[in-house]
Amino acid sequence: MNNFQSEAAEWFKTLQDSICKAIEGADGKAKFEEELWERPGGGGGRTRVIRHGDVIAKGGVNFSAVHGEPPQKMLEVLKLDKANFFASGVSIVLHPQSPMVPIIHMNVRYFEMSNGVYWFGGGIDLTPHYVVDADARYFHEQLKAVCDKHHADYYPKFKTWADDYFYLPHRQETRGIGGIFFDHLKENETQSKTDIWNFVKDVGSIFADTYTHLMQKNKNLPYNDAHTAWQNVRRSRYVEFNLIYDKGTKFGLDTDGRTESILMSMPPVAEWHYNYAPERGTPEAETIAKLKKEVDWISI
Amino acid sequence: MNNFQSEAAEWFKTLQDSICKAIEGADGKAKFEEELWERPGGGGGRTRVIRHGDVIAKGGVNFSAVHGEPPQKMLEVLKLDKANFFASGVSIVLHPQSPMVPIIHMNVRYFEMSNGVYWFGGGIDLTPHYVVDADARYFHEQLKAVCDKHHADYYPKFKTWADDYFYLPHRQETRGIGGIFFDHLKENETQSKTDIWNFVKDVGSIFADTYTHLMQKNKNLPYNDAHTAWQNVRRSRYVEFNLIYDKGTKFGLDTDGRTESILMSMPPVAEWHYNYAPERGTPEAETIAKLKKEVDWISI
Repeated sequence: MNNFQSEAAEWFKTLQDSICKAIEGADGKAKFEEELWERPGGGGGRTRVIRHGDVIAKGGVNFSAVHGEPPQKMLEVLKLDKANFFASGVSIVLHPQSPMVPIIHMNVRYFEMSNGVYWFGGGIDLTPHYVVDADARYFHEQLKAVCDKHHADYYPKFKTWADDYFYLPHRQETRGIGGIFFDHLKENETQSKTDIWNFVKDVGSIFADTYTHLMQKNKNLPYNDAHTAWQNVRRSRYVEFNLIYDKGTKFGLDTDGRTESILMSMPPVAEWHYNYAPERGTPEAETIAKLKKEVDWISI
Repeated sequence: MNNFQSEAAEWFKTLQDSICKAIEGADGKAKFEEELWERPGGGGGRTRVIRHGDVIAKGGVNFSAVHGEPPQKMLEVLKLDKANFFASGVSIVLHPQSPMVPIIHMNVRYFEMSNGVYWFGGGIDLTPHYVVDADARYFHEQLKAVCDKHHADYYPKFKTWADDYFYLPHRQETRGIGGIFFDHLKENETQSKTDIWNFVKDVGSIFADTYTHLMQKNKNLPYNDAHTAWQNVRRSRYVEFNLIYDKGTKFGLDTDGRTESILMSMPPVAEWHYNYAPERGTPEAETIAKLKKEVDWISI
């Protein structure tokens, strides 16, 4: 690892530590279990999984720093015959027990090729089983604030990118209420590598407060079996997104990443009902109606 | 549709009818619900779904005959600028209620491009939640008999192809006990188009007897919640295969097929447990140990 690679990996580890601590505090019961793993081709990671909590049913807060030969397809895209890559980041998916608490995902990462080409990527998005406007507004306000601190274009651009990325074309639905997504960020005329790194660090740093607020606010709301059945239908859409479209999952599987660490994003349970559609006027139908691109959640 | 396209589509419809009748008879309770659909780009299908049966929990026996412009990627592979395709076939996945009854899949199909290039494809594979050697042997014997009737090379070749195709590299597991898989079959030095079409029809025709035998044999075996929990873990692997690797699912989604017809292959429920592994010496561990390529099921 070169100097910056070490710095990035160390910072991501620290981020993993602080997020795990905050989630454990907000859950009140479950503790993360840690597994260290090594990747046969180079590098490894620190998988931390939480389950059977008072709030979190199943989830992971994973750190990894891997290196080696990139998948053949990536070499073709980059028009390189041979190269080595380095990739490090933190990847999070948390599936709550209660259908009233939203699923959350975050990923922040740094990628570098042996020819010096590098980029940052990342994103945070929220997947409520029931869309609550006030929560969606709160969530997007946090993201807008961290974006605006770094560049006026970031929030509108990365919000649109999230709408497009976290989308299931075969369902014509967004995965949830979106968030921000960015990739291939590197130094440019107005921003240095350090500027972008600072942005990525700030995105990572707001995660814990933002999500624990939503955990605390919603964890004691009452729910019944019908709400849970709906939750399991929404979870199946999460499975579909992650296995069909998610680039991180694909990259992980293509690079022989550790399967259980990659697929920690799967919910504990999912249900598929043929041709399922909620009845008009129900909260479930209202949620479906809101799973659209281009919703201005801050002004809703 | 040209003459052969009409003949193929008609035969596939008849096959769908006879299979649905046989499955309803063996289930004894549930009836198929039918939905006719049209594809915006051309053609359509007849989806038939069965659920909440005495034996079958959820499944579909689908016919489709679609045509239009192929996906861009396919044009690139075929080195064509512009073309039309025709595709027709029957596609089946049946998820039983009892963990003692295996999941089954079959697909038989005919594909033709407007430049006259055509091929047949298909396959049958069995996914027992618990591998039973006698059932696996019976299943492979049926497939070998139908293959041997047409060509001595078919069974060994198509059995190996199924081992390679119905495989989850990230789990290092086969989906089940395999079966046969073939694609891009067309006339050659020793076989006419009619010869191959007769083989494909024979494959389709053995489905009903083969599977209803396994339904009847296993449907009354006792099972408990622990067996069902294991079934739901195996179902999650089925989900992973179909959403990550299955070419039919991918082709369907890429060509704007009807989502609910394509994803009728999803089980009713699936469970993911982090780092799950059955205890040594249990029937679950024995099943995992048998989910390997190159098992000679006929001599087992």
